[in-house]
Amino acid sequence: MSPQVEFKGYALIDPSKWSDLKLVTFQPKNFQPEDVEIAITHCGVCGSDLHTLSQGWGEPKLPIVVGHEIIGKVTRVGDKVSGFKPGDRAGVGAQIGSCMKCRACKSDYENYCPSEIETYNGEYPDGIITQGGYSTAIRAHERFVFPIPDEIESAHAASMLCAGLTVFSPLKTYGAGPGKKVGIVGVGGLGHYAVLFAKAMGAEVYAFTHDTSKIEDIREMGAHHVIDVNIKDFAKPFSHTLDIILATRDSYEPDTPLSDYLSMLWVHGKFITVGIPNVNNPLPQLHPFAFAGNGCLVGGSHVGSKKECLEMLELARSKNVRPWIETLPMKQAKHALENLNANRVRYRYVLTQDIN
Amino acid sequence: MSPQVEFKGYALIDPSKWSDLKLVTFQPKNFQPEDVEIAITHCGVCGSDLHTLSQGWGEPKLPIVVGHEIIGKVTRVGDKVSGFKPGDRAGVGAQIGSCMKCRACKSDYENYCPSEIETYNGEYPDGIITQGGYSTAIRAHERFVFPIPDEIESAHAASMLCAGLTVFSPLKTYGAGPGKKVGIVGVGGLGHYAVLFAKAMGAEVYAFTHDTSKIEDIREMGAHHVIDVNIKDFAKPFSHTLDIILATRDSYEPDTPLSDYLSMLWVHGKFITVGIPNVNNPLPQLHPFAFAGNGCLVGGSHVGSKKECLEMLELARSKNVRPWIETLPMKQAKHALENLNANRVRYRYVLTQDIN
Repeated sequence: MSPQVEFKGYALIDPSKWSDLKLVTFQPKNFQPEDVEIAITHCGVCGSDLHTLSQGWGEPKLPIVVGHEIIGKVTRVGDKVSGFKPGDRAGVGAQIGSCMKCRACKSDYENYCPSEIETYNGEYPDGIITQGGYSTAIRAHERFVFPIPDEIESAHAASMLCAGLTVFSPLKTYGAGPGKKVGIVGVGGLGHYAVLFAKAMGAEVYAFTHDTSKIEDIREMGAHHVIDVNIKDFAKPFSHTLDIILATRDSYEPDTPLSDYLSMLWVHGKFITVGIPNVNNPLPQLHPFAFAGNGCLVGGSHVGSKKECLEMLELARSKNVRPWIETLPMKQAKHALENLNANRVRYRYVLTQDIN
Repeated sequence: MSPQVEFKGYALIDPSKWSDLKLVTFQPKNFQPEDVEIAITHCGVCGSDLHTLSQGWGEPKLPIVVGHEIIGKVTRVGDKVSGFKPGDRAGVGAQIGSCMKCRACKSDYENYCPSEIETYNGEYPDGIITQGGYSTAIRAHERFVFPIPDEIESAHAASMLCAGLTVFSPLKTYGAGPGKKVGIVGVGGLGHYAVLFAKAMGAEVYAFTHDTSKIEDIREMGAHHVIDVNIKDFAKPFSHTLDIILATRDSYEPDTPLSDYLSMLWVHGKFITVGIPNVNNPLPQLHPFAFAGNGCLVGGSHVGSKKECLEMLELARSKNVRPWIETLPMKQAKHALENLNANRVRYRYVLTQDIN
């Protein structure tokens, strides 16, 4: 059996030029009976792509094809695949494998499996390195393939599979919904999804931004309150108010006012950071005093499970949630990545297939 | 109306000698119709007393009488008091006032009222400074007075009112009980209560200590597992296991292996620090990567509410939970404080009345 599509992608070869991607062919995973093969039509551009290419998260395995917000058409399914058939539209997000046996995998927490395999820069047990979606095709075990509702067009669905799911999972976990007040810190790719989904879930949305040029956009996305964090004592009016704060920023300064954000939480409120900064850029240091006024918590989250992904897609379908995106042909990945690095994206790039 | 007892206490006057307390008289709060007056018989010695006297938490208002684990006999009640009568045994913990009007106060979260008043080193709205329980007597609004079940002797009940409640509250909040695995980091005054209560609540208890001389004691307290944290990779066998970790230590080194502790948490597990170090001693710095493997959270807690205190006392009564204490006459507070400072307590000092 030969693959029905050729595996080619835009890869980083020379790490000194992080955004300079070259078309290469690569070896996909060995096709298994549970696998689905997808001819890629769209791939979102995620901050993870940037961190990986620019080595902010360490040295990637080179050459590397990034991209983990993938939509395409199923071209082939293994004998044991039950949920997909050739011709279906399907997607792959940031995770492409797990052990399937541990307590996490058996509890719909496969995104917390200690043996999880990332969609790119990961490694299968047989040594094959995973390659991402700035490419022609991808193979994945069907557990890591998502059916896409007909009502959601591919360009819109793509970035839901990492950016969308990454914010949906903690919103769901920590109870965003009617009667709850949700703060969103940073309105970029992830943050704009957080505003859209928190609103769709019925929560009252407080968006915090330092970029005043985005304020009108954020209102249009549906935030009930938009707060300019450049204003002195911005947090004071909201003391003891918010049930959840989702922090989507992926860099922190030592003077980032984390304690001010925490002071806005209601009793036992959660501050969840979904952005993951470069390895040399930790959270500002915290003293337990910062938790004492409200018994709050600071935590993180890691993408989401398939169960959550399907629930998110159904929410997006039923409530007509659509991201604010710009599309570009895949060969312009460099342009998209550099704009992302310079914070010039409104609010997510999606690359469209242009190989062959 | 004159008070039925004279208000005298062992006070710090000269901050250069932090453990050197002198007998002074002091002005109590102005007696109100909702107030209860208590002739103190016992007072526990808490880490807070030490941090306050030694100025680790800032400069206290001098002279100061510390102590907030107070048991005594009711000597007087105001016209509007419904829950106490003279002769009753009653206790006061670390909080002696709140606004009674805010959302927190109305939700049984008075311990998170932004206007809460601490039992000592606090200030009433009329300017009276609060003084603690190394003294003859205390007055408090009845909301901050706890009835003590007959079955619990005073020396045992005293330290429950801060140390006990401080660990009970987060254990209750985060669901310690049958089927849950609870880690306790540090087995001193708070930690030994955490072992006792987590066990009484039906959880499986994992106690982590660096002091191997305590291991037999900790087993006798009821811990199911006692882990010596001096052992390399002590956390590895417990990866993705614990539902809650209660950290009772009140000092941190930059190399305290906080990430190792977090790695032991099950998905969405909570690491709750109930010890509050000196102001210049924050938590080790964390990177969001530390949360990504299990979606865990780090938070704090602040004593507990009256509702929780009554529930704790009922648990202690019904399950016969008794602390491991040493009693000393109140004039030996210096000895108790210095031993606490040197980590030479097994496991809580309780001072008994000796004034007059």
